[in-house]
Amino acid sequence: MPNAVVLVSGGLDSATVAAIAKQEGFTVYALSMDYGQRHRLELDAAKRVVASLGIEHHATVNIDLRVFGGSSLTADIDVPKARSLEHIGTGIPSTYVPARNTIFLGLALAYAEVNHAEDIFIGVNALDYSGYPDCRPEFIRAFEQVGNLATKAGIEGRQRLTIHTPLMHFDKAAIIGRGTILGVDFSQTLSCYDPAPPNRACGACDSCLLRRKGFQEAGIADPTHYQLRHT
Amino acid sequence: MPNAVVLVSGGLDSATVAAIAKQEGFTVYALSMDYGQRHRLELDAAKRVVASLGIEHHATVNIDLRVFGGSSLTADIDVPKARSLEHIGTGIPSTYVPARNTIFLGLALAYAEVNHAEDIFIGVNALDYSGYPDCRPEFIRAFEQVGNLATKAGIEGRQRLTIHTPLMHFDKAAIIGRGTILGVDFSQTLSCYDPAPPNRACGACDSCLLRRKGFQEAGIADPTHYQLRHT
Repeated sequence: MPNAVVLVSGGLDSATVAAIAKQEGFTVYALSMDYGQRHRLELDAAKRVVASLGIEHHATVNIDLRVFGGSSLTADIDVPKARSLEHIGTGIPSTYVPARNTIFLGLALAYAEVNHAEDIFIGVNALDYSGYPDCRPEFIRAFEQVGNLATKAGIEGRQRLTIHTPLMHFDKAAIIGRGTILGVDFSQTLSCYDPAPPNRACGACDSCLLRRKGFQEAGIADPTHYQLRHT
Repeated sequence: MPNAVVLVSGGLDSATVAAIAKQEGFTVYALSMDYGQRHRLELDAAKRVVASLGIEHHATVNIDLRVFGGSSLTADIDVPKARSLEHIGTGIPSTYVPARNTIFLGLALAYAEVNHAEDIFIGVNALDYSGYPDCRPEFIRAFEQVGNLATKAGIEGRQRLTIHTPLMHFDKAAIIGRGTILGVDFSQTLSCYDPAPPNRACGACDSCLLRRKGFQEAGIADPTHYQLRHT
């Protein structure tokens, strides 16, 4: 079975992506990032997701992006709460982390190279996160070009890197539906930007609001423990 | 004066690049990487270089690439020593770090974004380091495309990222000559892959051999303290 690197944050999108990569016949090398994020609890969720999917390979990179700041996830800026769903998706939210997916894909490329993988999976999504520039298809295609030039295999013309974005055109409900069919245990995932231990979601940040709406629209019971029953 | 991010390793190439960026009228934001490299002493050299050039802004990112290994700079693999100059530059040496420049440029992009810089300088060189795939012009141009799509300014079409590679077609002697004209104090720099404290070069790794040859060819006295007077 060919190897593939899957970026696993601990959220429901990347859990579904990991299940898709497995189903497509890849041996999954999960990769998580300890980047100084406010919601470091998601790293515990990443471990649970990897274990529950029976994935044997999992690396976590320590990379302190707080040195740059510039985001409510890595600096002392409040995470937006209780925004209307119409408001979410207009403009670039403060939770945008400068160049995050470029950095993460660069690290995934390194992990792929040492494990002889030509496939990288990332759970980016053009619908629910339209505010993030580095989730767009044109960004992903440009990075694929970089990956094909950057590595040992690239210089020898042996590498044909493919960056898989199976969720690109799914909405949250469709992701939840797909993950459910594949047996993902969403109770193990954590989407919240401002969680409380051990695995409690705030219920009011953009990520919580989109998650809750997704379960509602999918008609699937939401297993999340929300602190706030925001409606 | 516009801002520019300059990747500063502590070696002579990046010291010269920083001097060039200053001379071209940029306010320099120096960026160094503590990536678990065997030659961590170069970080002290980076600080000296930044200070000696009067650069006010300097950030160092902690990113532990030892989690991937795959290089004699980040894993327990011997650094090649006393290779012939003919041998150096054929094939990809074990000092290649998987996807390093992709990762470093991703981090430079983040630093550029938070400091409103549209210019990144990197001391890659197609001559002396022809073995590294991520030093080639086509790689740099592909990354520029990524940078123009990845950021806030990118999505708004405001960003016109330029990655400057002023040393791309210089040999080591030409770099030393240029740096000397610009007043770079090369005694503050450290090129060695296997140095001893406080600032002693091994004299036998590829980087030492190329450095020594460069000073000889430039006809400039070499201020380096080599442990081994390898000829």
